[in-house]
Amino acid sequence: MDKKIGFIGLGIMGRPMAKNLVKAGYSLKVYDLNKSAVADLAEAGAEEGASVSEVAKDCSLIITMLPNSPHVKAVVLGEGGILESASEGTLVVDMSSIAPDASKEMEKALSNKKLRMIDAPVSGGEPKAIDGSLAIMVGGNEEDFNEAKPLFDIMGASALLVGPIGSGNTCKLTNQIIVALNIAALSEGLLLAKKAGADVEKVFNAIKGGLAGSTVMNAKAPMILEGNFKPGFKIDLHIKDLANALDTGAAAGAPLPLTAGVQQMLQVLKADGEGQSDHSAIAKYYEKVSGTAIRKD
Amino acid sequence: MDKKIGFIGLGIMGRPMAKNLVKAGYSLKVYDLNKSAVADLAEAGAEEGASVSEVAKDCSLIITMLPNSPHVKAVVLGEGGILESASEGTLVVDMSSIAPDASKEMEKALSNKKLRMIDAPVSGGEPKAIDGSLAIMVGGNEEDFNEAKPLFDIMGASALLVGPIGSGNTCKLTNQIIVALNIAALSEGLLLAKKAGADVEKVFNAIKGGLAGSTVMNAKAPMILEGNFKPGFKIDLHIKDLANALDTGAAAGAPLPLTAGVQQMLQVLKADGEGQSDHSAIAKYYEKVSGTAIRKD
Amino acid sequence: MDKKIGFIGLGIMGRPMAKNLVKAGYSLKVYDLNKSAVADLAEAGAEEGASVSEVAKDCSLIITMLPNSPHVKAVVLGEGGILESASEGTLVVDMSSIAPDASKEMEKALSNKKLRMIDAPVSGGEPKAIDGSLAIMVGGNEEDFNEAKPLFDIMGASALLVGPIGSGNTCKLTNQIIVALNIAALSEGLLLAKKAGADVEKVFNAIKGGLAGSTVMNAKAPMILEGNFKPGFKIDLHIKDLANALDTGAAAGAPLPLTAGVQQMLQVLKADGEGQSDHSAIAKYYEKVSGTAIRKD
Amino acid sequence: MDKKIGFIGLGIMGRPMAKNLVKAGYSLKVYDLNKSAVADLAEAGAEEGASVSEVAKDCSLIITMLPNSPHVKAVVLGEGGILESASEGTLVVDMSSIAPDASKEMEKALSNKKLRMIDAPVSGGEPKAIDGSLAIMVGGNEEDFNEAKPLFDIMGASALLVGPIGSGNTCKLTNQIIVALNIAALSEGLLLAKKAGADVEKVFNAIKGGLAGSTVMNAKAPMILEGNFKPGFKIDLHIKDLANALDTGAAAGAPLPLTAGVQQMLQVLKADGEGQSDHSAIAKYYEKVSGTAIRKD
Repeated sequence: MDKKIGFIGLGIMGRPMAKNLVKAGYSLKVYDLNKSAVADLAEAGAEEGASVSEVAKDCSLIITMLPNSPHVKAVVLGEGGILESASEGTLVVDMSSIAPDASKEMEKALSNKKLRMIDAPVSGGEPKAIDGSLAIMVGGNEEDFNEAKPLFDIMGASALLVGPIGSGNTCKLTNQIIVALNIAALSEGLLLAKKAGADVEKVFNAIKGGLAGSTVMNAKAPMILEGNFKPGFKIDLHIKDLANALDTGAAAGAPLPLTAGVQQMLQVLKADGEGQSDHSAIAKYYEKVSGTAIRKD
Repeated sequence: MDKKIGFIGLGIMGRPMAKNLVKAGYSLKVYDLNKSAVADLAEAGAEEGASVSEVAKDCSLIITMLPNSPHVKAVVLGEGGILESASEGTLVVDMSSIAPDASKEMEKALSNKKLRMIDAPVSGGEPKAIDGSLAIMVGGNEEDFNEAKPLFDIMGASALLVGPIGSGNTCKLTNQIIVALNIAALSEGLLLAKKAGADVEKVFNAIKGGLAGSTVMNAKAPMILEGNFKPGFKIDLHIKDLANALDTGAAAGAPLPLTAGVQQMLQVLKADGEGQSDHSAIAKYYEKVSGTAIRKD
Repeated sequence: MDKKIGFIGLGIMGRPMAKNLVKAGYSLKVYDLNKSAVADLAEAGAEEGASVSEVAKDCSLIITMLPNSPHVKAVVLGEGGILESASEGTLVVDMSSIAPDASKEMEKALSNKKLRMIDAPVSGGEPKAIDGSLAIMVGGNEEDFNEAKPLFDIMGASALLVGPIGSGNTCKLTNQIIVALNIAALSEGLLLAKKAGADVEKVFNAIKGGLAGSTVMNAKAPMILEGNFKPGFKIDLHIKDLANALDTGAAAGAPLPLTAGVQQMLQVLKADGEGQSDHSAIAKYYEKVSGTAIRKD
Repeated sequence: MDKKIGFIGLGIMGRPMAKNLVKAGYSLKVYDLNKSAVADLAEAGAEEGASVSEVAKDCSLIITMLPNSPHVKAVVLGEGGILESASEGTLVVDMSSIAPDASKEMEKALSNKKLRMIDAPVSGGEPKAIDGSLAIMVGGNEEDFNEAKPLFDIMGASALLVGPIGSGNTCKLTNQIIVALNIAALSEGLLLAKKAGADVEKVFNAIKGGLAGSTVMNAKAPMILEGNFKPGFKIDLHIKDLANALDTGAAAGAPLPLTAGVQQMLQVLKADGEGQSDHSAIAKYYEKVSGTAIRKD
């Protein structure tokens, strides 16, 4: 693969992902509104792009890694955006976590101009972005997926095609629904244990090996029992993801009653100033309502 | 340990548990309303008890394994029950899954007559009762726990003391809350994936190794994707456990909003004739409301 | 009607109801565990009963007015109770607010001995018990209803037959579900108004005449805006009623998701020491979670 | 008042409202994308506007009556919109039902250019728009409110100032939350009555005069009992309003757990093809989940 790779969006996640591609020998042309992020990449060996349009004109594969649907739509569909500037056949690989319907809408507009798009959001957070071990969930055509696969193999530990365009983000949202609810389940269960007089740490140890066990339990129960809510994955970001999930569910006819309930809890936490806390702070919602700290004795 | 062990309650769980004790060389005196169960144990080498009272008079350690709080209270506190008949110092080991407050109430009544009690509900179901690999969660004094420990080691793969009397059942309820909610979370997430057009089986494979992964996901997602709801653990029993959890939460001041919501789903399933289905049939609630089967393509 | 009327249960509600019957010229034989309540009625002109059994033997129509299902079942089905002591043909008029299934169970047992029963719970509280203007909801046969109707006309402003045995209580529970949810709806709406910066009192005035208007809004919004939660109808009693509603829904196959949610709120309030506050204190749940008082400016 | 009134948005509501102003003798200049609506108003005596810009240039008070926030923002803030074209001092009276935060955002932008704005959404629907008896809830300054008051008096039966800019819409959302929840409460209560065997129509009659009584109950219970869900106010519109309420609550820190739950029900109904049914069809959600029609016998 000797063509130039475009990379738009050099934030907390995008920057180390782009660097890993450069390190692996790829020629990158990069762009971000934040000039120091661009300079940082240039130092690492990437070419600086002056605008989205310039990147789009120069590269036949463009990776985008941006905060949410409106940002990606601005870059792809907006004035001076990829749709306007890129050549026929260009493949857009959007690795942002956005609403699946936004992915579908953009892919439709791009395909009308013979451009291609796949959505490929990641999970794993900054540490896994740095060491190139992200989990990548991809929606799109198999051919396009295969074309981007070598890049995914550098940025991630796994990349799976899970359905047509939008499915990468749908998969991510499914993941986020389950994670949020599993944390809430853990919190609700531990609160009962605490209030009814059991030793919560021993309860955790007694159940973690059985059917109630989960990656969430192993990762988050110790944080809850210590009262340590350092992120990790922030409440604010989980609110964004569940908002996308609720919108997607509404459009697709999928009722999400428990997600809707947990979103209300997350929003209470945000209002309480916990937006930058780890999502394990869902336990703090239960602590607030019950007036009881779920801490080990 | 050469004293005689009483065993009251020889149902689906109690019968194999009692047999394992007999096989291990313990002298058992057993009782159940079902005469054929008693006869079966006699054939295996146990002594037949004619009544609760007779068992209570003869044994200084009595295991009870009964359906729910009222049955245990009848056997312990009722006419001709253990409280009336047992000698000072007798240790009651209630292995039924009941309300923690019922355990506390019985222990209090027993201790007034210098009898002792620990609660020690199990998880794992019939297969693990048969092969002696149950997980046993225990509430009570450490000394009493240690006295019963050799028996637990025969019936179970693990036995943990998790707090004072009632805590074994509290721990079991915590477990059951988390399991029910994790199944609902899985169902809600997979429904979104299905409705939004992703390949649900590939989604399952993409997320099971990450933070959304859980024992519930590994065990139940394949059942849901196949539409196979053969128990396993039955909806009817999970309703019983969540009812005990909700009562316990109400008494202890622990709000359980998501548990209350899932209990309503379980009750809809029961009304639909799914009481004997596996609890993974929570997915059928989502299928009913959305009019869409969550099956692999 | 010159036969003697039995009246069992002389609490806050029963005492004024019984007195109204005495004042109207009826011969009453009364019983309560509380001797001073019995003495009070005797002074008013009623005959003192020494026991349930004595009242049951002496009277062919017996009114019961007791706290909840277990109390009524003890008086009707228990040792020395009405079933044991009353003569064939006796009509039991249970005016307690209990679970409909308990009414059905008692009526079945009574009818096996050729005794009759109707359930006739009331709404309106102590003030309307005193001035004889209760609303009475009745379940049972039309003939039995008509026989008790003259008594209802003295104790209440209205009495309606709403279905077979148990339906009086079902009707009461329907009423209590709607009242609790309408209070929660009002609280949730007013909280939004407050948090978004509107003048809550003016909002109340703007909407009370439209489709959002209700007896609950007229009665409870002023209390919420003043922060006055003097009962009225107590949180503790509303918890009792919703517990009966949830049990009835579970048995009948009626999902009650919002009721289940509000019951969790009420239980938080009880744990916070608000059990004796008016049920309009549901607003305090919202205030607690949001950290904002919903008071007029 | 002899200055010219601008009126933008001549849909189901806007058209009769504008006509009432014309009939009352006001000079109107009107605009809508739908030319036949403009022609219809012209026939009634209004002046045709060629564009938003033309109306804005010509009128010092401009009423807008549009579907939702994005439409109003396009007309007010967009290219060729009111902000660009109107003269200093112009008063924008937005009578659309939109998000309060959108009102606040527009008012801020307008005030920077010395234009004024109040938000004044209505309730009552098409019939009350036609006969000039709408309820109008207004947010803004008292002076601006007083300036628009003569117009409100023609279009509505009541107009109340309920707080600063955005408060009209906040009030409308409070109203819509309470209405939706009161309908759900009614449905949940009646389902219990039906399933437990009472006569639902008699139950309705027994409770409507008490604390459970409401305008919703009087208006919607007969529709539910007949199975008549002809609008009235449509599910689709109620979804729009609750979405605005949930967004407003999230931004303002007001948890709306029951609203979030009912929104999921409404979305199920929409997916089932009931978007154009009256919002009393919330009862159909309960009927679907329980498999039981809540009809009078």
